Amino acid sequence: MSVFDEFLSTPEMLELFGAPSMLQSMLDFEAALARAEADAGLIPQGAADAIAGACRVEEFDVAAIVAASRGAGSLAIPLVKQLTAAVARADAEAARHVHLGSTSQDVIDSALVLVTRRALGLLERDLDRLIEALFALADVHGEAPLLARTLLQPAQVVSLGFKVANWLAPLLRGRERLRAQAALALQLQLGGAVGTLSVLGAHGPAVARRMADALRLRLPDAAWHTQRDEWIALGAAVGVLCGSLAKLARDWSLLCQGEVGELAEPSDKGRGGSSAMPHKRNPVASMLALAAGQRVPLRVAALLATMAQEHERGLGNWQAELAEWAQLFGAAHGGLKALADAATLGLEVDAARMRENIERQHGLVYAEAVSARLAATLGKAHAHARVEAWSRTVAREGRPLRAVAEAELAADDAGRRIIAAADWPVLFDAELAAEPARRLAAAQLDALRERWRAAMGARDA
Amino acid sequence: MSVFDEFLSTPEMLELFGAPSMLQSMLDFEAALARAEADAGLIPQGAADAIAGACRVEEFDVAAIVAASRGAGSLAIPLVKQLTAAVARADAEAARHVHLGSTSQDVIDSALVLVTRRALGLLERDLDRLIEALFALADVHGEAPLLARTLLQPAQVVSLGFKVANWLAPLLRGRERLRAQAALALQLQLGGAVGTLSVLGAHGPAVARRMADALRLRLPDAAWHTQRDEWIALGAAVGVLCGSLAKLARDWSLLCQGEVGELAEPSDKGRGGSSAMPHKRNPVASMLALAAGQRVPLRVAALLATMAQEHERGLGNWQAELAEWAQLFGAAHGGLKALADAATLGLEVDAARMRENIERQHGLVYAEAVSARLAATLGKAHAHARVEAWSRTVAREGRPLRAVAEAELAADDAGRRIIAAADWPVLFDAELAAEPARRLAAAQLDALRERWRAAMGARDA
Amino acid sequence: MSVFDEFLSTPEMLELFGAPSMLQSMLDFEAALARAEADAGLIPQGAADAIAGACRVEEFDVAAIVAASRGAGSLAIPLVKQLTAAVARADAEAARHVHLGSTSQDVIDSALVLVTRRALGLLERDLDRLIEALFALADVHGEAPLLARTLLQPAQVVSLGFKVANWLAPLLRGRERLRAQAALALQLQLGGAVGTLSVLGAHGPAVARRMADALRLRLPDAAWHTQRDEWIALGAAVGVLCGSLAKLARDWSLLCQGEVGELAEPSDKGRGGSSAMPHKRNPVASMLALAAGQRVPLRVAALLATMAQEHERGLGNWQAELAEWAQLFGAAHGGLKALADAATLGLEVDAARMRENIERQHGLVYAEAVSARLAATLGKAHAHARVEAWSRTVAREGRPLRAVAEAELAADDAGRRIIAAADWPVLFDAELAAEPARRLAAAQLDALRERWRAAMGARDA
Amino acid sequence: MSVFDEFLSTPEMLELFGAPSMLQSMLDFEAALARAEADAGLIPQGAADAIAGACRVEEFDVAAIVAASRGAGSLAIPLVKQLTAAVARADAEAARHVHLGSTSQDVIDSALVLVTRRALGLLERDLDRLIEALFALADVHGEAPLLARTLLQPAQVVSLGFKVANWLAPLLRGRERLRAQAALALQLQLGGAVGTLSVLGAHGPAVARRMADALRLRLPDAAWHTQRDEWIALGAAVGVLCGSLAKLARDWSLLCQGEVGELAEPSDKGRGGSSAMPHKRNPVASMLALAAGQRVPLRVAALLATMAQEHERGLGNWQAELAEWAQLFGAAHGGLKALADAATLGLEVDAARMRENIERQHGLVYAEAVSARLAATLGKAHAHARVEAWSRTVAREGRPLRAVAEAELAADDAGRRIIAAADWPVLFDAELAAEPARRLAAAQLDALRERWRAAMGARDA
Repeated sequence: MSVFDEFLSTPEMLELFGAPSMLQSMLDFEAALARAEADAGLIPQGAADAIAGACRVEEFDVAAIVAASRGAGSLAIPLVKQLTAAVARADAEAARHVHLGSTSQDVIDSALVLVTRRALGLLERDLDRLIEALFALADVHGEAPLLARTLLQPAQVVSLGFKVANWLAPLLRGRERLRAQAALALQLQLGGAVGTLSVLGAHGPAVARRMADALRLRLPDAAWHTQRDEWIALGAAVGVLCGSLAKLARDWSLLCQGEVGELAEPSDKGRGGSSAMPHKRNPVASMLALAAGQRVPLRVAALLATMAQEHERGLGNWQAELAEWAQLFGAAHGGLKALADAATLGLEVDAARMRENIERQHGLVYAEAVSARLAATLGKAHAHARVEAWSRTVAREGRPLRAVAEAELAADDAGRRIIAAADWPVLFDAELAAEPARRLAAAQLDALRERWRAAMGARDA
Repeated sequence: MSVFDEFLSTPEMLELFGAPSMLQSMLDFEAALARAEADAGLIPQGAADAIAGACRVEEFDVAAIVAASRGAGSLAIPLVKQLTAAVARADAEAARHVHLGSTSQDVIDSALVLVTRRALGLLERDLDRLIEALFALADVHGEAPLLARTLLQPAQVVSLGFKVANWLAPLLRGRERLRAQAALALQLQLGGAVGTLSVLGAHGPAVARRMADALRLRLPDAAWHTQRDEWIALGAAVGVLCGSLAKLARDWSLLCQGEVGELAEPSDKGRGGSSAMPHKRNPVASMLALAAGQRVPLRVAALLATMAQEHERGLGNWQAELAEWAQLFGAAHGGLKALADAATLGLEVDAARMRENIERQHGLVYAEAVSARLAATLGKAHAHARVEAWSRTVAREGRPLRAVAEAELAADDAGRRIIAAADWPVLFDAELAAEPARRLAAAQLDALRERWRAAMGARDA
Repeated sequence: MSVFDEFLSTPEMLELFGAPSMLQSMLDFEAALARAEADAGLIPQGAADAIAGACRVEEFDVAAIVAASRGAGSLAIPLVKQLTAAVARADAEAARHVHLGSTSQDVIDSALVLVTRRALGLLERDLDRLIEALFALADVHGEAPLLARTLLQPAQVVSLGFKVANWLAPLLRGRERLRAQAALALQLQLGGAVGTLSVLGAHGPAVARRMADALRLRLPDAAWHTQRDEWIALGAAVGVLCGSLAKLARDWSLLCQGEVGELAEPSDKGRGGSSAMPHKRNPVASMLALAAGQRVPLRVAALLATMAQEHERGLGNWQAELAEWAQLFGAAHGGLKALADAATLGLEVDAARMRENIERQHGLVYAEAVSARLAATLGKAHAHARVEAWSRTVAREGRPLRAVAEAELAADDAGRRIIAAADWPVLFDAELAAEPARRLAAAQLDALRERWRAAMGARDA
Repeated sequence: MSVFDEFLSTPEMLELFGAPSMLQSMLDFEAALARAEADAGLIPQGAADAIAGACRVEEFDVAAIVAASRGAGSLAIPLVKQLTAAVARADAEAARHVHLGSTSQDVIDSALVLVTRRALGLLERDLDRLIEALFALADVHGEAPLLARTLLQPAQVVSLGFKVANWLAPLLRGRERLRAQAALALQLQLGGAVGTLSVLGAHGPAVARRMADALRLRLPDAAWHTQRDEWIALGAAVGVLCGSLAKLARDWSLLCQGEVGELAEPSDKGRGGSSAMPHKRNPVASMLALAAGQRVPLRVAALLATMAQEHERGLGNWQAELAEWAQLFGAAHGGLKALADAATLGLEVDAARMRENIERQHGLVYAEAVSARLAATLGKAHAHARVEAWSRTVAREGRPLRAVAEAELAADDAGRRIIAAADWPVLFDAELAAEPARRLAAAQLDALRERWRAAMGARDA
């Protein structure tokens, strides 16, 4: 719609939901309807041929249809009018069979399903690219020790592979969730005026079956004009995926901060500059995904709120749903593609900086380990309180935790026995501290790769 | 963005927030910046002339700017590049003064303010049309008795004028709220990289003042890169107006129901038909306003959620805000213009049907009046219980309340004294029952017309 | 929280997410943790017994824990302190083993999972009651012809069973969706400070497995402190179910309108009265479900928006998620239970009024059938235009469509041949017009009953 | 509602919107109604005394009223019943005059207005504390140079006072916005069943005037049962304030990061610890305000979405509005009070760390200044490109920008003339770089203090 939507979405997705694409899908529906009705003996084969032959959007006045739709209350009404006229020019007799038994919402819903199938293809394409790139990142830099942060405070030491595994797992699950829900939601809509297909008489079910086959769509149990649950559940699955993407983008953006400096988005020509500050290197992929992360939840809310559609066809809510649906995919793809592009171009990892950030914590990131060691002798509560006090000393005096702790424990014999001299370096070693995370990450990444290979096999089969 | 946004918005509003319009406003900013800097002696007048002369969007490659913006992270960066190149072709020396001291967000925010001023003009234009048409409706049909409904149940009798006054008052207030908040929010944005205008040295304030004058924008106390409160409060005011419009559309749609039939949207050629059912006359204006009513609150939520912008300039949230802002206006105008068009073409009022719907309630709409009369003798609680019981009899047996009540009270002398024979017709008269509403409506409409005349005076002054 | 939440939710659900219930579940987690650690040889069995023995919320100062939680930033911190003190009073040695290796979020997330399992049980209980009652409604009144409405306008004739089937199908699907997603989302949370369970060394996985068994929770692939996708997907499934409930409530509320009068919510003592109007019978169940339908989508949006949690544990977003989660279930159950109660008490169906509403449409609801019949001779576009014109005559003159159409067609021989005299009553017969809907409904209801029997078998197995 | 709402809100606000407080306010309405009706001669003074005397919530069965409200569809109905019974026990005659002419929504809306006035008082109290503390922060640490960040990247140098001024200004504006909108929105609700006060006959206006005086509420132009714009606009003003608070909390949380370390929330006993990590010092005030920042926008969206209320009284949407309203204030106060408490206890500012973070940027934060200097000779575009290239060298080689730039410019005579030797230290001096920000901040803080003094004068007058 606005230049900002162009900025935050992608040309591909905007094209998909634009007027020519949607109208062509509506025409595909009309062609399939005519063919199915001819096969069922409801209309002559010649008429079906004439109708199908006219179903090419290039020959329609798209702008006029869109302009007329506001007054008509539906895109389908002016389209069917133009289609009928176009068919009539070639074959007056055939024109009387256009759109037989169907209704506006049948055409629009089914067309949107067709377009959505392609939209999901775009999402999956870029999701796959992102996943591949993250696997590669774990391969190259996975072992590097990394500061874990909780509540935006330094916590303990993990490994980059551990972090990447935790980015990856929700993406693989999100991909599966999308596929599973798409299998349920990509359904033909064909119910006629009120969902009974009454005009087609006994032929209704057969026509629907043929159309579903022709368009490779699921045949629903019933028309779903105002029963939108499977459809909205698909939208929600896109929303959940975007949540996982926003989490990843949040992490990237925090790791890219100048004061952290552990990660940088790739900088090729024209990426992430500033019109004022020549030194800037802005994390624009994170930016786009974070923007999507702010917008998508509200699209899902809109979709859910539109579900209370009146009786056999809704007034206003269905129409709002269509527009929100398109925006959901636009925003989602804008964020996803940006992340996939950045990850594929290559994130820059600064392992030295990662190590430096660990070291700069005065050893506080080893506090839980020290506390756990003390707890064996002192009990958890007492140990925790003691290390908490030392930590305050560290913060106040800027001395390393190890020095503070050693000095305190050295004050009496009991203290000296709690931690043997040889154990101190072990407790305060980033590489050793990263080990539990590495072990977990190795197992988790193995399992994810297995799952990924299976997914790729299914995709390419 | 999608064909559905085209359907639910208006061509005018889409054009305003589209790339050429926004880029021209950005160029207007650059021209005003150069002129103000020349006036302040920061750059040569000739350079300012050369820059201002190049600021015509027709000579830019709009598609290339939009395409480059995603990677750059901002629309301003590729625009400034093209502008610099364009100026250089005419005057190489002048090119070095393009965009001096400013930053991307200055350009984009200020341009969006300029576009928003025009967007508010569109909203006000159609709001005024709607208000005028509603005043006319009250003039013609205001006295007609009308069934009031609470919780979607028949309640009592009011007048159409009473209902119209209650539609009008929030619209007049909404108009004033928009104007008042626009006066605060339509501000120049000019802060340079981090809000200090440091590059302009001591000249910063003078340059800002000149630009604000030239662009007829308010001069803010400080740059508002990440202090969005006045701006978002304007968005919220649009949201509140749309809430009042949705309330009106909800009422229209309910009054247009076949079973109610008291109101019909105008039916001219091509309005509100159905592709399946030739008899349909759908309330498409209500539909568009209800759709807006579902979408707009979520745009406002998005705007509020984007306010937590980081430090001196946000990452992702500002960008999301821009896009949501444009959509807010697109959706709002789609609904508002549809209502204004319908009201101006003329709503059809069926006063006979209004009367019939009152009569069909078996007199239950007079139950509170009867109860109030009984209460003088029996007390409120007892009277209420008694009429409640009679009402159940009415519902069960389909007899009119008056007959039930008269029969019950006639059973004993005390009862007969409570309501005199002559009072029964008075209690059950729609015209008389409408009187309190008529009186209130007359006073309220007078006051609203006064307010409206003052507003029109101010507008045209 | 407020009296209005008490009004719109249910006492059962409020109790579940209240402090005593949540703290008890947190204590259940601590008990299970201690036992699992004892079984793994990490702590003495006696300590585990002492800890488990102290895990009874009745012995805690709940108010003090809640009050301390705001400053502490977490409910778990003051709880663990009180627990440690309580254990210490009985067994000083055991106290040192409390909460070993775990972190606040482990306790709170796992406890919320336990509470949520019970919350889902409440939802399912009342969903099952609603489903049963709707099946019964279809059994008793399913054949009755009913006016179908599209865009809030009279459309064609269906049957009540057709409508009920369309209410039921999404509820059965919603039930399955909840079960399927619950099986994925009801997972143990156990990761320790940063998700690595590092304090437990090699014993971590074994402890986790034992705890999952003991608490009958799924064992996740990894800690999900900031990977909330399965969890939020469960919240979204609740949201989709509420959308289907809101659709049903919207239909009920419209059918209950005085001017429609086809349905009434049950009126027992104290239901749906008015403090002012003794005759009122408000559809309070619809009201509560519609209120839920307005609130729930925004809770889902909140959940999705909180997914962008920082690094290994979020700041603010996780905490917001917890509160929104509780409210989601509170609102959902408030609406669902109200509908289930009303449906079980018994909706009142007024079949005579349903028939009357069909008849009052002047035959316009048969317009599509007439048009379809004409189309065989005239072609669809021509037939549609002709019936559209007749419909305008009907609306203008108040004459029945049949009379208008017969008169028009009788004007010439060709016309007379299009519809034989004997066919007119067939085209304008409500019972016959309901047949396509009845056939579809019969098949759909059979399939739904089959699915329901299977679901009940699974539930009771 | 849930323990998490207790955690994220405040006891004071929860108490205000709880059942006893709301019911007492409803009783205050009933007492004022009776007195106003007695003054108008509608009921005996003795009856008014008896009614007013019974309006003490301590003597009501609050739990029973809440329990009955769900079935009744309104809190007012069971309350009025209990009140009538209570009055009757003292004075049977007086009982018949309870609630005369009013309706449930009059009572509940007016009571909520009364409660909201006190809720606004709580917000203002803590907002004032926060503002005072921020002024004090600027007094003490305002001159300290601080790294400005844009898009989460280091940008230039400002001063802490500049940042504080930008936190303060929206809070003062927010305070004024709340006051201005409260003056419009805190209105009496009194319309009777359908807004006409018909039962009170000609006395309606006088009764309303007396009640408004007695309750110190604005007298509205008309009942606003379904015209919620002024009311929702007040909710939106709370929402905008929370957006400004969330922005402040976002900044705090980022400045508190271990890797930044420029700010710390106060750590007193029990604040911000971790159950696992003894060294943690979590920014819990930021956490609570960020949580509010995520929840509040969706409450505002809910309020806006409920505005489409049907006819004279809404079904479901009004009820949803009430509950969302209470939550809005609960969440808002939870965040605001936490920030006020932390600011009042005292934020810890680490000016040394602020300086260190500037120094660690290799001089890149002076890049715009260098570029501006070069631009005088080379033009803006060329200068920008050159500094951009040097910045890449800095990033690649880790050498300071000054060294890179000096070396590059020294390579030829023209270069050497661009920046004189004496100018280099000036360009790369944090104190000097902070000057523009300090100047702006001084002026802005002066103006804000002036505004603040005026506000305090008005408050205490």
